[in-house]
Formats: sequence, C-alpha cells, structure tokens
Amino acid sequence: MSTTPKLNDGISVELRVRYCECDPMRVAHHSIYPVWMEMARIELLRCQGRPHHLLEAEGVHFVVARMSMRFRKPARYDDLIRVHVRMDCSGRIKVNHSYDIYRDEQLLAEAQTTLVCVDASGRPRPIPDGTLART
Amino acid sequence: MSTTPKLNDGISVELRVRYCECDPMRVAHHSIYPVWMEMARIELLRCQGRPHHLLEAEGVHFVVARMSMRFRKPARYDDLIRVHVRMDCSGRIKVNHSYDIYRDEQLLAEAQTTLVCVDASGRPRPIPDGTLART
Amino acid sequence: MSTTPKLNDGISVELRVRYCECDPMRVAHHSIYPVWMEMARIELLRCQGRPHHLLEAEGVHFVVARMSMRFRKPARYDDLIRVHVRMDCSGRIKVNHSYDIYRDEQLLAEAQTTLVCVDASGRPRPIPDGTLART
Amino acid sequence: MSTTPKLNDGISVELRVRYCECDPMRVAHHSIYPVWMEMARIELLRCQGRPHHLLEAEGVHFVVARMSMRFRKPARYDDLIRVHVRMDCSGRIKVNHSYDIYRDEQLLAEAQTTLVCVDASGRPRPIPDGTLART
Repeated sequence: MSTTPKLNDGISVELRVRYCECDPMRVAHHSIYPVWMEMARIELLRCQGRPHHLLEAEGVHFVVARMSMRFRKPARYDDLIRVHVRMDCSGRIKVNHSYDIYRDEQLLAEAQTTLVCVDASGRPRPIPDGTLART
Repeated sequence: MSTTPKLNDGISVELRVRYCECDPMRVAHHSIYPVWMEMARIELLRCQGRPHHLLEAEGVHFVVARMSMRFRKPARYDDLIRVHVRMDCSGRIKVNHSYDIYRDEQLLAEAQTTLVCVDASGRPRPIPDGTLART
Repeated sequence: MSTTPKLNDGISVELRVRYCECDPMRVAHHSIYPVWMEMARIELLRCQGRPHHLLEAEGVHFVVARMSMRFRKPARYDDLIRVHVRMDCSGRIKVNHSYDIYRDEQLLAEAQTTLVCVDASGRPRPIPDGTLART
Repeated sequence: MSTTPKLNDGISVELRVRYCECDPMRVAHHSIYPVWMEMARIELLRCQGRPHHLLEAEGVHFVVARMSMRFRKPARYDDLIRVHVRMDCSGRIKVNHSYDIYRDEQLLAEAQTTLVCVDASGRPRPIPDGTLART
C-alpha cells in the first residue's frame, strides 16, 4: 500500500487568486480558469519529463480543441487555489485531461480538455513516443 | 419572406484580435474566447432592453455555471472576428446561450454556456420577468 | 485654415470597457491601459501606411522600452473610451508617443511611451525609412 | 551587524511567466508587469501587517495614480521572475514604491508607482495610522 501520489493520479499546482483576475462581482472571472488549467497541465508535462519549451523547440505543440467546464463555487481574491490535473487518455494525435479546482477541500470547478498535437505551422501531427509517458 | 435578422436569431458583435491576446504560437489564446463570448452576450442583453449595469444595480447578476467550447481554426492577431450569440432557452433561474465565432465566413469556434441568475451575494434567484424578453 | 485632423495631430480609437477588465473596485484595472494604448498606437501605424503584421513579416518590431502613466479618473465597465495617440518624435531606432484617454470630454489618463525598433531576435535595429512617415 | 532582510529594504516575490502572458514576439507582454508589481506590493502590505482584504473591508483602498516603467531585457515563457518592491516614502494620502524585476541576477525592468488612498467610493482619504508601518 502506498499513499505516495503517482503520476497516473495526476499532479496539483497551487496558486493565489490575483486581484486583477477578479471582476466587479468580486470573484475570479471565469475566463481565468483555462489559464490556471494550462499552468497545471504544463506542470504535468514537466513531470512527465518533457518540458513545454523543449517540445516547442522540437516543433511539438499542443492546442486546445475542446474544453468543457462546470463552475460550482466562486473563487475570491487572495484565495489559495489548488488545481489538480490528470491525463485521462491519449491517442495518436489527441490527449484528454481532467481538472478539479479546489479551495481547501471545497470543489470550486471541474473541467475537461482535449488537446491536439500540431507542428509549428499548426498542422496536426502524431504525438512523439514518450512525450506523455506515464511511468 | 424576410432577411432581416430577428432577435430570436441572436445578434453578432465584431471585434479585432488584440496583439496581447495572442500567444507565442501567434494565435489568439483559448482563454480569450470566453471574454469575447461575454461581450456578445452582454450586447444581446442590451438589445433585449435590459442593460447589464442596470440589472446589476437591481441586484440581478448572471454567473456562468457551465461552458463548453470547440475550437476549429485559430484566430490570429488583427483578424476581424464576428461572435454570434443566440439565446437557446431560459428557465426560472437559468439561461442557455450558443455562440458561433467566425472570421469572414469561416467558423473558428462554437460554444455553449449555462448562466445562473444570482443576487448581489451570489445566491441563486429567479430571473425577473421581462429580463430576457424575446420580442 | 482646416479643421481636418492631420496625422501629425495623431488619431483616436474608441473602445468599450470590458467587464473582465474591471476589478473588485468596479473600475478598469490600471494594467489594461497599456493594452488600450497599444491598440491606438498600432492603428496609428496602420494610418501611416505600414500595417503592424507586414512590418513584423519584414523583421521590424517595436518593443516598449519606457512607459509612464498618470491616472486622473477611473474608467468603469461599459464606458465608451477614446484613446488619442500622437507620435511625438522619432530617432534612428527610437520613437516616442503620447496618449490621452477620455470618456466624453473628461480626461481619464495621460501616458507616454518610448519604443525601440528591434529585429526578430530582439536586437535593436534602425527604423526603416518611411515606416513612420508623417505625411 | 545583521544580514537579515529588513522590511525597510522591501520584499521579493517569485513567480513564473505564464504562457498566455507571452505575445507573438515570445516575450512577456509589457502590460503584465503592472500585474506582477501589484502582486509584490500587496505581499509587502501583508508583511506590514495589514492584509489587503482587511483594509478593503475597512474602506481603505489604494489606487494607482502614477506609474513609470523602464524595460531593459525581455522576460520569456516559463522564466522564474523575482519582483522586489520597496516602499520609498509615504505622506498623508499618498505612498511611493519602487520595483526591480529580475531573472536570476539580471535586471529586466525597473518601475515606480504612486498610490493614493481612497474610500470605497473612490474619494481620497488619509492613510490610517499604522497601515504602512515599517517596523
């Protein structure tokens, strides 16, 4: 038995809600959640051994093709937020991720994305072997 | 027969992609689309006769509860973009919208949102009669 | 005598303050003003006959080296804002602009920038002849 | 003799440049620097013993009245940035800060701001005693 988080279970990143990310309703604007999700997803890539900027230098880019989000509770200025990201499945050119966004133990939002691997000019290309290794 | 756009058919807003909305891939970052969608949705509200700031002054706010997006083609810096928004259906406290985002006649992205009506403190409340009139 | 605006006198662009550009104080966050200024400055470049994306394709980029701003009155959500930009002077590799930001006749903010011309790799280079023509 | 950092000498915050903060030139857009500066400034306030949200609850807000920035070197995606902020002087209703922004030991940008203390409706008001204590 192990309680050690495995990469298979995904990773979490923590961040603090910025003042300018909040709108006149005094809550984080919903358009900032995809930014937080991207930060977590890129960090997952780094843990998988392939830093984002190295992949880009090799002409391997990922673009978001689909995104769905459900907002349950608002995040507020200065809240410490935890974004948990998990790779659900990957195919030849696509990869799916799931996200859970928490403040303490409270679930604020859930999301899913589908990314497509493209080359520097934006054309779909196969994901190179080992890019998304889940060792 | 009429080719005049009816409010039932929604409205379109045009905007130009800003330089800082584009990322190192030289395309509009996906997190900016919800901002464009909100601009169109608020304009629709204005056309429905209830400006957003008046509603807020009356304690009528709408928060995004669900959002799904499909990205088909990238938008690039300085592109002139047309965001078409349509109200799909509304219930007692929720309202659904659909969005199509174009550059010229090319469909770049599609999206749907579900908004929930809340009061100033964020608690769900009924949508006041006439707020989303589709005359 | 002529009341026709001359390019020497600069140009103005109009824009509407977006909801997500406003912070919990219900005013446009100060970090959005440089974005508005850039929009006006790029439009001035377009009027000077050299669209920004063509210049970039030729390896002519401008980066902001200095910026100073004075904020006099807040801009609020949905305000219609007018950003007036004027080229003050240009040298071999630098160009200075001034900005006045208005709501109706009320001056909200003033700003100045110094831009440096750089090549695609970010190294300073001379501004090509005719780029900033003030005919 | 002490090498312990004193509050008088200011504080530093570290942050990583986000992908969407970078523009097609592949560098952090200049409009994000005021956001980073605000993060550091608010953290300084927290160290001075008065968290930003408590001040706001008491009707004590600070708005940026003046800002000047000098950009020396670009910041790039995924760079680890250190923003050092120092309170220069404060008067009855105004306070001045200076900022130095580094990547490792390299100075990327310098900036200064003047903030004005205002009440919830935006009218200037005296800074309450002890708000900016430099013990």
